[in-house]
Amino acid sequence: MADPRFFRAVGPFTVAEIAAATGAAIGGAGNAELPLEDVAPLEQAGPQHLSFLANARYGEALGRSQAGAAFVHPAAQGKAPTGMTLLLSDNPYLAFAKAARRFYPPPRAAAGIEAGAFVDPSASLGEDVAIGRNVVVEAGAKIGAFTQIGHNSVIGPGVIIGRDCIIGANVTVSHALIGDRVTLYPGVRVGQDGFGFAPDPRGHVKIPQLGRVMIGDDVEIGANSTIDRGSGPDTVIGAGSMIDNLVQIAHNVVLGRGCVLAAQVGISGSTKLGDFVVLAGQVGLAGHLSIGTGARLGAQSGVMRDIPPGVEFAGTPAVPKRQWLRQHAILGRLANKKDK
Amino acid sequence: MADPRFFRAVGPFTVAEIAAATGAAIGGAGNAELPLEDVAPLEQAGPQHLSFLANARYGEALGRSQAGAAFVHPAAQGKAPTGMTLLLSDNPYLAFAKAARRFYPPPRAAAGIEAGAFVDPSASLGEDVAIGRNVVVEAGAKIGAFTQIGHNSVIGPGVIIGRDCIIGANVTVSHALIGDRVTLYPGVRVGQDGFGFAPDPRGHVKIPQLGRVMIGDDVEIGANSTIDRGSGPDTVIGAGSMIDNLVQIAHNVVLGRGCVLAAQVGISGSTKLGDFVVLAGQVGLAGHLSIGTGARLGAQSGVMRDIPPGVEFAGTPAVPKRQWLRQHAILGRLANKKDK
Amino acid sequence: MADPRFFRAVGPFTVAEIAAATGAAIGGAGNAELPLEDVAPLEQAGPQHLSFLANARYGEALGRSQAGAAFVHPAAQGKAPTGMTLLLSDNPYLAFAKAARRFYPPPRAAAGIEAGAFVDPSASLGEDVAIGRNVVVEAGAKIGAFTQIGHNSVIGPGVIIGRDCIIGANVTVSHALIGDRVTLYPGVRVGQDGFGFAPDPRGHVKIPQLGRVMIGDDVEIGANSTIDRGSGPDTVIGAGSMIDNLVQIAHNVVLGRGCVLAAQVGISGSTKLGDFVVLAGQVGLAGHLSIGTGARLGAQSGVMRDIPPGVEFAGTPAVPKRQWLRQHAILGRLANKKDK
Repeated sequence: MADPRFFRAVGPFTVAEIAAATGAAIGGAGNAELPLEDVAPLEQAGPQHLSFLANARYGEALGRSQAGAAFVHPAAQGKAPTGMTLLLSDNPYLAFAKAARRFYPPPRAAAGIEAGAFVDPSASLGEDVAIGRNVVVEAGAKIGAFTQIGHNSVIGPGVIIGRDCIIGANVTVSHALIGDRVTLYPGVRVGQDGFGFAPDPRGHVKIPQLGRVMIGDDVEIGANSTIDRGSGPDTVIGAGSMIDNLVQIAHNVVLGRGCVLAAQVGISGSTKLGDFVVLAGQVGLAGHLSIGTGARLGAQSGVMRDIPPGVEFAGTPAVPKRQWLRQHAILGRLANKKDK
Repeated sequence: MADPRFFRAVGPFTVAEIAAATGAAIGGAGNAELPLEDVAPLEQAGPQHLSFLANARYGEALGRSQAGAAFVHPAAQGKAPTGMTLLLSDNPYLAFAKAARRFYPPPRAAAGIEAGAFVDPSASLGEDVAIGRNVVVEAGAKIGAFTQIGHNSVIGPGVIIGRDCIIGANVTVSHALIGDRVTLYPGVRVGQDGFGFAPDPRGHVKIPQLGRVMIGDDVEIGANSTIDRGSGPDTVIGAGSMIDNLVQIAHNVVLGRGCVLAAQVGISGSTKLGDFVVLAGQVGLAGHLSIGTGARLGAQSGVMRDIPPGVEFAGTPAVPKRQWLRQHAILGRLANKKDK
Repeated sequence: MADPRFFRAVGPFTVAEIAAATGAAIGGAGNAELPLEDVAPLEQAGPQHLSFLANARYGEALGRSQAGAAFVHPAAQGKAPTGMTLLLSDNPYLAFAKAARRFYPPPRAAAGIEAGAFVDPSASLGEDVAIGRNVVVEAGAKIGAFTQIGHNSVIGPGVIIGRDCIIGANVTVSHALIGDRVTLYPGVRVGQDGFGFAPDPRGHVKIPQLGRVMIGDDVEIGANSTIDRGSGPDTVIGAGSMIDNLVQIAHNVVLGRGCVLAAQVGISGSTKLGDFVVLAGQVGLAGHLSIGTGARLGAQSGVMRDIPPGVEFAGTPAVPKRQWLRQHAILGRLANKKDK
C-alpha cells in the first residue's frame, strides 16, 4: 500500500512466522501457513494483508475488514469476521509494531566509505559500517559494526558510536559515547558546549564545558534536536528513551530509561528525570529539578519544582492535572459572570 | 539603499512597467515614463525610488517624502506631495511586494552541477537545474527545471521536486513530493520518520512510518523547521502556505491552502487545518484536532479541542480571545485586592 | 578529571600565574609557586587542583576539600582548611571561569584549507584561518585571522567574519557582518530571509528582505538557532550577548549588549532589547516591542507590551513577577474551595 518509490516490503511471511516473531498465539480456526505480503489498516486490507485492532471501540471496522490476518486482543476476537486468521495478543498494537518492522526493516546503506567522505586514519570502523558522502570521521572516533552515517554528517574526535546505529544526514556529534541501535535523525546536534558562563557586565565569561554526552542503547533523537554535553558531570540519555524533533536538552541533564519527550520540549541544566517520564509537546523544565519515575507532564506545562513519581501535572507553574482543569473551569466561570 | 555586497536591484523600470506588473493605476498627474531604480521606505526615498503607503496613519510621512513614485490607496492620494507619481491600488502593500520582487528577484545560481556534488545516474534533472557543492541527489529523484539545490544538501531516493524551487544549504529531504516554486530555507528537514511507536516497558517499539510528505506549490518553509512524513496517510502542506523557522509538523498533519505558521509552532500528529489558518508564534496544537478555515490562534496558545472556522482563540487551553482577555483582567483584579 | 579522549588541560600554571590572569589576590599563607595541573570541583579536587567556592552555603565542602588552591570570597576564607592556598576574589565564579579557560582554551583547528573545501578566488582569508572539509566560502566573503570554519558549513557571498571566531560544523551564514571572537554552534542559520510577506487570498507575496545581520564581538549563538536578516533595517545582536540553542530571532530585532537568551526563546520582528536583558527558556516576545535594559522575563512568559528597564516579569501575558505569583496563589485557592 505504501508508495513503492519510497518503501518496499520484504516478505512474504507466513502467519506462523509472524506469530513466532511477535509472541502472538494463532486463533482457533487460523491458517498458520497463510502468506502475508504486507501490512495495512483494517479498512484498506485485503486477504494478503496483516492488520490489527488496537482499540475495542473500532471493533466494527474489524468485522467489515477483508484482512487475511489481524492481531486482536483475546477479548475482542468475537468481533472478527469468520475466515480471518487471528493473532491473539494482550497488546495487539505492540505486536503489530514488531510485525510491521519485519516487513519494513530500516533501509540499510551499502557498507563502505562513499566518495568525498574522510575517515581519519586513527578512527576505527567496525564490520560493514556505511559512511555516506562528505562525512567526516575525526581522529580516534570508533564506529560499531553495521552502523551507518548519513551524508554530510560530522563525527568529532574520540566519539564512540555503538553497533547497528543509524545516524542521519547533516548530523553533528562531538564529545559523546553512544550505545547500540541508536537513531539520530537529520540535523541532530550532540555534544556541543552547554550554556554555562559567569555573567559579568564587562563581558560574560564562558566556563569550559568538560563533560560528555552518554546515550544509552535503543535511543531515538528527532530531527534538529540539540543535546549539550555536560559541564563536568555528563549529560545522560537513558536507554530506550524516545525524543522527538526540536527538543533541547541542556548540560548535565539525566534522563532515565524509556523516557518519552515530545517535540519542542526544553530541559534546563542539571534536571534529572526518572524512568518512563513522559513530557508532552513544548513542556519546559527549569534547572536542577528532579522528576519522578513515571511522571507525566501535559503539553506546554512549565515546571519549577520537583515532581513526585507517577503523577500527572499540567500548567505553568505545573500543578496536578485535575487542579489545573479546575482552575481553568473556575476562571472561565468568573469571566462569564457580569463584570462588576 | 540595500548593501550592495548582498543585494543588487535589477532595473530600472518605468512607472508604466511597474503599473502593468502590479495592476496599479497611474494617478492623474503621474509620469508613466519616469524611470525607477530601486525601492525605499518613504523617509529614505529619493526621486529615483519607488515607495508605498500601506497605512493611512503614516500619511504625513507620505507628504514629506521625496519618493519619485509611491503606491497609495486611492483614498489617501490627497496626502501625497504634488509632483509625486502615484500608483493607485486597493492594496498598496501587496502591490509594493510584487514590485519589490521585480527589483529583487531571488538570486539564481548558475545552472549545472558544482564540484563535489553527486547525482545518482538514475536521478533526473530538468532544464537549467543548479546543484550546489557537496549535494547528494539519490537514486530515482527528480528535480524540476530551474530549481536550485543549496550546498551540502541531501535529496533522498525517489524524492520529486518541482520547477523553480529554491532549496537552501544544509537541507535534508526524503520521502517527499514537492510542488513548484517551493522554498526550503537552510537546515529544513523534510520526510524523516514520524514519532510513532508502541510504548512498552521492555522497550518502546518504533512503528514503520510508511507515508510521505506532500508539499503544494508556492510553499515556504523556514530555517531548521521539521516536517515528518506520514505514518501511512501522508503529511500534507497546502499550496501557498508560509511556515516560519523552527516549526514542527508531525506525521499525518494536513495544512490547507495559504496557512501561516509563525516561528516555533508545533502541530501534533494527525491534526488538520483548513485554509488560511493563522498560528502565531509558539502555538501548540494537540493531535487529531480539526482547525477551521480562517481560524486564528494567539501566540503561545495551546489547543486541545477542535476550533471552528473564522474564530480567534488564545490561551492554554485556548478559548475565544475576548474571553481570554477577560480572564486575565479578572485574575489581575483578584491579585490586586488585599489577600484575605 | 575530564575524559582525556575529549579534553586535555594545558598547564601546569602556578598560583601566581593564575592570580595574575584573574585579578585575584593570593591569601596570606598561600604558596604563589604551587603548580596547578587542572581544575576540579571541591569534592573531587586533589592537591594539584584548582577549585572554587562560589556560594557561601557550600562552605562546608570547602572545609573538607583536598584542593591545592581555590578561589574564595574574602568573607569566606575562614571556612577553608589550613594549608589550602586561597585566591581571594569578589567574584570567585567569574575568576574561576577565567582560570578554567586558561586550562582549557577552545581547541584550535590546524590552519589551512582542508580537502573538499572550496574558497572562491575572490574571497579573502586572514592569517592562519582554518577551513574545514567540504566548507564553501563564496565570492567576496572575508574571514578574519585565526578564525575557524567547521566542516560542511557554508559562508555566503559577501559575508564578513572577524578574527578569532569559531564557526561550528553544518552552519549556514549569509547576508551577515560578524565581529571578533564570535562562536556559532553547529547548525546555526544566520541571514536567511525574514518572514515578511503581503497576505493575499490569491497567494501571499513574499517581500524581498533587503537588510543584513550584524553580530557584535564576543557573541555566542547556540546550536540550531536561527537569526533572520532584516527586511530593510538590519537584525542586530549586541556585543557579548549569549544565545542558547533553538532560539529564533526574527527580522529587524535588535539586541543590546550582553543579553542572555535561554533555549527556545522566540523574538518576533522589529522588537528591540536594551542591554543585559535576560530571557529565560521558551519566552516569546511579540513584534515591535521595546524591552528595557536589564529586564528579566521568566520562563515561558509571553510578552505583548513594552517592558520597562530593570523589572522582572513572568506569565502570559507577562505581568510583574510578584503579581504573577499572587495570581497563581489565588487561582490555586479558588480551585481548592468547594465548587458551588
